[in-house]
Amino acid sequence: MLTKESLETPCILIDEHIVQRNIDHMAECAARSRVKLRPHIKTHKIPEFALRQLVKGAAGITAAKVSEAEIMAEHGVDDIFIAYPVVSPSKIKRIIALAQKIHVIVGVESLEGATNLSREAAEAGITLSVRLEIDTGLARTGVNPDKAIELAQQISALPGLDLSGIFTFKGAVFKGVGTLDLKAAGQEEGRIMVETAEKLRACGIAIRDVSVGSTPTAAYAAEVEGVTEIRPGTYIFYDRMLEVMGACSKEDWAAKVLVTVVSVPAEDWFVVDGGSKAFATDVQPGQQPLNLKGFGEIIGLPDAVFERMNEEHGMIRTSGPHRLHVGDIVEIVPNHICPTINLHNEVFVSQEGAIRAVPVLARGKLA
Amino acid sequence: MLTKESLETPCILIDEHIVQRNIDHMAECAARSRVKLRPHIKTHKIPEFALRQLVKGAAGITAAKVSEAEIMAEHGVDDIFIAYPVVSPSKIKRIIALAQKIHVIVGVESLEGATNLSREAAEAGITLSVRLEIDTGLARTGVNPDKAIELAQQISALPGLDLSGIFTFKGAVFKGVGTLDLKAAGQEEGRIMVETAEKLRACGIAIRDVSVGSTPTAAYAAEVEGVTEIRPGTYIFYDRMLEVMGACSKEDWAAKVLVTVVSVPAEDWFVVDGGSKAFATDVQPGQQPLNLKGFGEIIGLPDAVFERMNEEHGMIRTSGPHRLHVGDIVEIVPNHICPTINLHNEVFVSQEGAIRAVPVLARGKLA
Repeated sequence: MLTKESLETPCILIDEHIVQRNIDHMAECAARSRVKLRPHIKTHKIPEFALRQLVKGAAGITAAKVSEAEIMAEHGVDDIFIAYPVVSPSKIKRIIALAQKIHVIVGVESLEGATNLSREAAEAGITLSVRLEIDTGLARTGVNPDKAIELAQQISALPGLDLSGIFTFKGAVFKGVGTLDLKAAGQEEGRIMVETAEKLRACGIAIRDVSVGSTPTAAYAAEVEGVTEIRPGTYIFYDRMLEVMGACSKEDWAAKVLVTVVSVPAEDWFVVDGGSKAFATDVQPGQQPLNLKGFGEIIGLPDAVFERMNEEHGMIRTSGPHRLHVGDIVEIVPNHICPTINLHNEVFVSQEGAIRAVPVLARGKLA
Repeated sequence: MLTKESLETPCILIDEHIVQRNIDHMAECAARSRVKLRPHIKTHKIPEFALRQLVKGAAGITAAKVSEAEIMAEHGVDDIFIAYPVVSPSKIKRIIALAQKIHVIVGVESLEGATNLSREAAEAGITLSVRLEIDTGLARTGVNPDKAIELAQQISALPGLDLSGIFTFKGAVFKGVGTLDLKAAGQEEGRIMVETAEKLRACGIAIRDVSVGSTPTAAYAAEVEGVTEIRPGTYIFYDRMLEVMGACSKEDWAAKVLVTVVSVPAEDWFVVDGGSKAFATDVQPGQQPLNLKGFGEIIGLPDAVFERMNEEHGMIRTSGPHRLHVGDIVEIVPNHICPTINLHNEVFVSQEGAIRAVPVLARGKLA
């Protein structure tokens, strides 16, 4: 049996009890607002955790890539929304193969993409469920709400497609720097989506699913009458970014990176054996609106700043003299857990002292 | 047979011809300065490429982690320097197991680490080659040159260890912002190391290897009389950061990330299917001294700025109207290729139109 002391660092240690509590709480939140819960599996990338979410009432799961969906389907997940504009014929063929085994929905946000989906579906003799992506402010993918009617009508006219819903990912996008009003953001997200759905229905397009996303806004968006589904992902583990946003407390952190102190150059500085190969750096310190200090929070040293990273080194500055020695183990909560999990081939799941290794089967699934 | 058109994006495409030319050029550079070449395999993480470097005259390879060394040894590499302060007894035991099969050298930079190495080596009844890490300005790991004598004497007194050399990694560290004088940086790196070796020898410590690092400084450091070895890594592929530094030309770029345009929200803006899961973000745009614009260079659109990334989305702004459509393939040279390779389970190697998939066997080796 593995013990915490026997783990080789850097590695990710997950508290099974907190995971289960986080799963339960989000399931209760969705039930309270009478919306479906379709968790995004990009955070954990582990079939076992997807199945646990389904057992606790999730209506299906969300994935970003066809390859993620394929792995999840292989392990018993039978209802998957690929919330991404899949446009390449080779990938669409794989979606159709999947749709012949399980329930699949796929995102669409351009006429070119829809035309490719339609052609492949019609050739295969199936009807593919698609949802139109709406941009509610992130300026990433998704059609502007004002242009949704025209595109929805074009998609509806294509053979082989069933335009069953609309979806969005707004995330923690805020109009003004520092205005971390999650409630207002979630309500705005829900309102825009419900209004867009109403406009489409008025044009004869039978929108059934109004799906909104993101851990920080899900609870508030779910309360908007007319929203039918939420797709949070990070809530299963939470992370430092979400805690700073006010979307969780530190007690909700289920995943920590364990590292070893390999060098103590000074009394207020130490170096650990985890750098950018062990911690994602896509949420950078000092960027607005969060203005996080450093790359993660050091458990037990909340004032320490994880200042710099190279691939295999993490440089941490403490506010005063620390008592760490070469060889000590330190636990760190990363700024962004989802891409951090993607860096690890396996995670270690702890329940009452017993630890087991769990492969991150949908890790590195790019295509 | 694979063709470029048949690849699923995002993926990494490597030009075998350029790889071979880069390997040859660095081998010639080392031979000219009569220093050994010990390439760092962190860039490619692929045994085949390590063997090619050895065939072209490399004296051995460099790795950062024990697990990387294990993979390389399994595939026929028989001389490996683990240029990292390995301090944990469990990892040291693995190094000793490796040292009983091939020639292994390991980094050391603290008395605690050296004591652990000594104890394990003595217990196993072997002598382990170690090199003392010197900090030549990066402020990462490594002992200050002024304190090297005391620590070297302590290490020399420990049983089971042969302190055979000193090593450093300076990288492109510059005293003043914007002073990208690679020649001056390399010469300083070499000079500090040779002076330190001389001081240690004057105290009776038989330093044989004076090993310096990094692609941008290797050629200049190698010219310093007394330097015996260089350990560049990135030169096998080069990347955008090195080109901006002046350490290579764009013709030397051997690795590109292929992505597909999935959305065209505006005439001066498009979105691709590669984000922070396909491109490393540890070299951030706008940071001094390089001040790179964006996360990579778009081939054919050198003025376009790869502005933002989420995990699966890359947002690219062009300087004027672009002609790209949903479904088009775009090639991007990332800012930092080493951690980018670490995100991909396989790379695609192209030689005169024929493409083969090569697994990145030492990818994600954290421990």
